[in-house]
Amino acid sequence: MQKNTSIHLAARPASGPITADLFEVRQGNMPEIGPGEILIKQTHMSLDPAMIGWMNPDPESYIPPVAIGEVMRSSGVGTVIASNHPDFNAADQVSGMFGWTEFLVSKGEGLNKLQPGLAPETVLAVFALPGLTATQGLYGFGHPQPEETIVISGAAGSVGSIVGQLAKADGLNVVGVAGDDEKCAWICEELGFDGAINYKSDNIEERLAELAPEGVDIYFENTGGTVQQPVFDRMNAHGRIIVCGMIADYMSETPAPGPNWIPLVKKRITIRGFAMPDHLAEAPALLEKLTPYVLDGKIKFRTHVLEGLEASIDGLNLFFSGANRGKLIVEL
Amino acid sequence: MQKNTSIHLAARPASGPITADLFEVRQGNMPEIGPGEILIKQTHMSLDPAMIGWMNPDPESYIPPVAIGEVMRSSGVGTVIASNHPDFNAADQVSGMFGWTEFLVSKGEGLNKLQPGLAPETVLAVFALPGLTATQGLYGFGHPQPEETIVISGAAGSVGSIVGQLAKADGLNVVGVAGDDEKCAWICEELGFDGAINYKSDNIEERLAELAPEGVDIYFENTGGTVQQPVFDRMNAHGRIIVCGMIADYMSETPAPGPNWIPLVKKRITIRGFAMPDHLAEAPALLEKLTPYVLDGKIKFRTHVLEGLEASIDGLNLFFSGANRGKLIVEL
Repeated sequence: MQKNTSIHLAARPASGPITADLFEVRQGNMPEIGPGEILIKQTHMSLDPAMIGWMNPDPESYIPPVAIGEVMRSSGVGTVIASNHPDFNAADQVSGMFGWTEFLVSKGEGLNKLQPGLAPETVLAVFALPGLTATQGLYGFGHPQPEETIVISGAAGSVGSIVGQLAKADGLNVVGVAGDDEKCAWICEELGFDGAINYKSDNIEERLAELAPEGVDIYFENTGGTVQQPVFDRMNAHGRIIVCGMIADYMSETPAPGPNWIPLVKKRITIRGFAMPDHLAEAPALLEKLTPYVLDGKIKFRTHVLEGLEASIDGLNLFFSGANRGKLIVEL
Repeated sequence: MQKNTSIHLAARPASGPITADLFEVRQGNMPEIGPGEILIKQTHMSLDPAMIGWMNPDPESYIPPVAIGEVMRSSGVGTVIASNHPDFNAADQVSGMFGWTEFLVSKGEGLNKLQPGLAPETVLAVFALPGLTATQGLYGFGHPQPEETIVISGAAGSVGSIVGQLAKADGLNVVGVAGDDEKCAWICEELGFDGAINYKSDNIEERLAELAPEGVDIYFENTGGTVQQPVFDRMNAHGRIIVCGMIADYMSETPAPGPNWIPLVKKRITIRGFAMPDHLAEAPALLEKLTPYVLDGKIKFRTHVLEGLEASIDGLNLFFSGANRGKLIVEL
């Protein structure tokens, strides 16, 4: 009989890297479906920075933590291999919050049937969390205007790279911050950003003065860390700061303080923290906004593919090291 | 011939107290009016924390600084003593940005004719900058809902005291932060706040836990300083922070850092800095919102009156020491 492998959260991470002992790999029987149910074979799983946050309880978080013993939460793409559900047929491609498992049973709730021909990589890299998050953050809170300057941290990441390309297509001056020269070259040469700052080797203040000579109107913050204060210092009056992620600080025992708030008054700045799960009701409108950019070829992406379910565990550490090249996807 | 005394900015303050050598007191001739002009005798001047900021140039500020040699900027109430303007008559009471001067000439621009019988103190303490700022901040950005908890720093100040009374009238749990026991007693016993924290002597974290047991939904920040981080730490999901002033840090050479931004994402918090001059076009709507509360007796205030033009100079230091009791007004 065919087996199913799944990975369950076994312990909660303290600060530091994600290690194999935090998880339990289980071999189980292939699940069986009852009336109205669908059996899905997952083919591609998404790894996202938000997953780090889901591993620890936080009463204030936007989503409950993964329980100890529960399958680790993730989104993915799969193929229907058996269906007792009227809306789904075998061979349909579907996406949803599948978790770290090869096979799963669904009643169809929260499941999206994909258009035939759409590559799983495009779904996970653009039309799932990254694209929705980028679109909601930039247009829902950033109010971008042509010729304004936007600075994006984590600019080579799955969200940042889409934010920058949308802003560029809209006529903004787009400055990306990334952690190595290859990423900086990629966002400028391949994605069309106007400039890039390597926060590890550049003088951030000097580069900002060169690349944002008229100041910063929108700061799309995906990382936190050393770039935050210098960008904050260059914000223009009526600037908008969108805080989407703070990966540089998530695993720090003593996260660095943030900027003093005096400039918020003097420059009448708005800082807006958000998390995409609050805005899933707006997903259809967001996809309607995003899709024309994709169809016009304005949104390029690259994927960094890991092989096999168990590669997920160490794969999460790539968000800390920044060593991934493109959207992290695990192929099963 | 009658003389006019005015006070002009002579030097820009570094950090530290406001001293007499920053100003020049000038004795001049009584101004004369030409066609279309009005001669005003100022009777009451307002001192506001924002004036500290107006003394130093800041290209990003919402308002140009007072130029060296210029009359120090302030708002006030006065009486028309001569008029060549069709809309104003002698004995009319008017308010406007009069500056530190006994007499002034106006062409009527930016001048408000006051309803007969309205006390100058009520105008300056409620219907001018303090009331407009409180109303814009609370309703324009705070979106208060009954039974939510609001924490207000500088709660005994001209803006904070109105914010708290509006919120109380709307059914919120209202917690004020002030710098001494007398102010704490005043906002609770006279203004009806639900609780007060003396940030100089109380354990802020413990008092917040008592007074905001279900967390903080709205933080109306007028001061900065040691209260900021503990209130930030207790913010609820979807909390709103309105940053109206940072008086505790304005004159500091090295303002303290602010909170780390991780909670902005986890709790989807919005921080909105604002300055009232951006919203003067909305003043009629704000006054329409505010006036019923005043007419219903919901808005009490007290004034701290200084005597004579030159009392203004040292009077500004009361914003640093917090020694004033009520809205600072200079009577001429």
